[in-house]
Amino acid sequence: MSGGPAATVPDSLARSRALIQRVLQNAVGRLEPSLAGVIAYHLGWRDQDGNEVDKPGGKSVRPTLTLLTAESVGGRAEDAVPGAVALELVHNFSLVHDDLMDGDRERRHRPTVWALFGSAEAILAGDALAALAYAVLLDAGDESGRTAARELTDATLEMIRGQSEDMDFESRIDVTEDEVLRMCAHKTGALIACAAALGAILGGGDDGQVAALRAFGSHVGIAFQAVDDVLGIWGAPDVTGKPAASDLRQHKKTLPVVHALAGPDAGEFAGMLSEGSLSDAELPRALEILEAAGSRQWCAEVAERHLAQALAALDGSDLAAGPAGELADIARFVVGRDF
Amino acid sequence: MSGGPAATVPDSLARSRALIQRVLQNAVGRLEPSLAGVIAYHLGWRDQDGNEVDKPGGKSVRPTLTLLTAESVGGRAEDAVPGAVALELVHNFSLVHDDLMDGDRERRHRPTVWALFGSAEAILAGDALAALAYAVLLDAGDESGRTAARELTDATLEMIRGQSEDMDFESRIDVTEDEVLRMCAHKTGALIACAAALGAILGGGDDGQVAALRAFGSHVGIAFQAVDDVLGIWGAPDVTGKPAASDLRQHKKTLPVVHALAGPDAGEFAGMLSEGSLSDAELPRALEILEAAGSRQWCAEVAERHLAQALAALDGSDLAAGPAGELADIARFVVGRDF
Repeated sequence: MSGGPAATVPDSLARSRALIQRVLQNAVGRLEPSLAGVIAYHLGWRDQDGNEVDKPGGKSVRPTLTLLTAESVGGRAEDAVPGAVALELVHNFSLVHDDLMDGDRERRHRPTVWALFGSAEAILAGDALAALAYAVLLDAGDESGRTAARELTDATLEMIRGQSEDMDFESRIDVTEDEVLRMCAHKTGALIACAAALGAILGGGDDGQVAALRAFGSHVGIAFQAVDDVLGIWGAPDVTGKPAASDLRQHKKTLPVVHALAGPDAGEFAGMLSEGSLSDAELPRALEILEAAGSRQWCAEVAERHLAQALAALDGSDLAAGPAGELADIARFVVGRDF
Repeated sequence: MSGGPAATVPDSLARSRALIQRVLQNAVGRLEPSLAGVIAYHLGWRDQDGNEVDKPGGKSVRPTLTLLTAESVGGRAEDAVPGAVALELVHNFSLVHDDLMDGDRERRHRPTVWALFGSAEAILAGDALAALAYAVLLDAGDESGRTAARELTDATLEMIRGQSEDMDFESRIDVTEDEVLRMCAHKTGALIACAAALGAILGGGDDGQVAALRAFGSHVGIAFQAVDDVLGIWGAPDVTGKPAASDLRQHKKTLPVVHALAGPDAGEFAGMLSEGSLSDAELPRALEILEAAGSRQWCAEVAERHLAQALAALDGSDLAAGPAGELADIARFVVGRDF
């Protein structure tokens, strides 16, 4: 949808994965073996039987942003590795806990941690990932490590606020578009904004550059969430790794759902979402209502608008052209994926 | 059991509660209102209906240690307030998550957070408490704030290791006394050691003083756990705020249980603990086995030994006599409580 090289996976993703992998493994290696095994499974390093896996899990978008923003302000990617690793750890802490809170049994075509190992292991694994993030970041040399840790704390608190709002919204049918966009900014935007800001901080950027890159990340995050919400309803299960229409069944107040709740069939849709979980029989009608409201198209517009704002934030902050171009590619990639 | 003023609640506990209360409230006030409400309930500030409560919950032992150790190295209690608050936040994060992981439905004579608000709220509340701890500590002025944050991270990781070991032990009957003592050092000792070390760090103590006070806290923690494990089996429910013999029913490998598993009726006891949860009918026999093995007395000796080591650690580090005396009182108080 966004033009440009959206469908190609940017090279920078593979490069950053190689840079952070060893530090990430050392961090996880600090844990008690059984807990480290749970996390190795979650991160895609091991399969369900504990055997090592060759292909890496996840796309490493967040750590890549951190390394590229460091380079974009004239720093070295190496200096930002602790930030990139901390980001990846906090992101995965949130995934492990969110899957349990949301009752999601599948991620990336595999059972989620709680579904495979139990709730207690999932809680503890998430807690460990969060603590390791600070361990990695606070060990990172000078004063910028502390500034980075504060940035990470604020982003984590914003992310928690977003998850809290998301949970509150489940029992409401009067959520406004403004509210759900703000929730996305908290739940998804904050950590991607932090990914971009951390690199700028650790790479020695000035306050203006940090702020511009934080804004870039925030808009990328909201655009990404708009795409993700569309996939959560219309995405093919073999692409998303989740059951079809899973968000809709769970009454999540995602962007398209909130949009349709202000559309032509608002009353009927609200009625469907006020009952228990949506049945298979009700799904086709729910999808009709969403189409009639133009909710899918509205999400595409939200994504386009925030992608444009993200790209605009890259201008005017005196960033190095090469890394800034790669940042733009990543933004287009995450927004354009599978659309 | 420990002689001295064990039965009297030290004045320092009430004083420190007053010092930290406002900072603690401000930290919780940063959260989304519904989540802040959950935490206000957990901390005993509100009742189940959301009404404010007058009497404070908990004994604030950990923050008191932090404030006193700051004074013991010649610093001001005020300088250590961010450390004390961070400690109280991390401690409560661990309580909220542990109650859920262990399936405990009651704490301090009230429903636990997950039992009252649900698992998802409990997970998120714990996550928020942990993140707030770093927010408070990293905002605490100078370089010592960063050193303190690293100390807190390491302690949190040790605590998580202890919880992981505790969970692993549930399915084992061959846990040794060394293993269970090490688990206690991780699960309980690490955070109390951190409480003592943080005050020394923020109060400007030298490395030797920080190490001595960390050791003091670690021994207090292990002694406390030995007492707590005795209460978990023999404590009256109206004192512990938990159901009678709750630890035993859940097959927890606490100190007395592990001791009795090496005692005269080890085979029979192991058999009882290998089945599902212990029935009411089996409880009297299990208690007989523990008595016959002298497990309760052994725990008392463990507590006495570590209390003595804690008090010894206070000597020889050139600590201010007044605060050091109060630290000794606290140590005797937490070990002597209800014994």
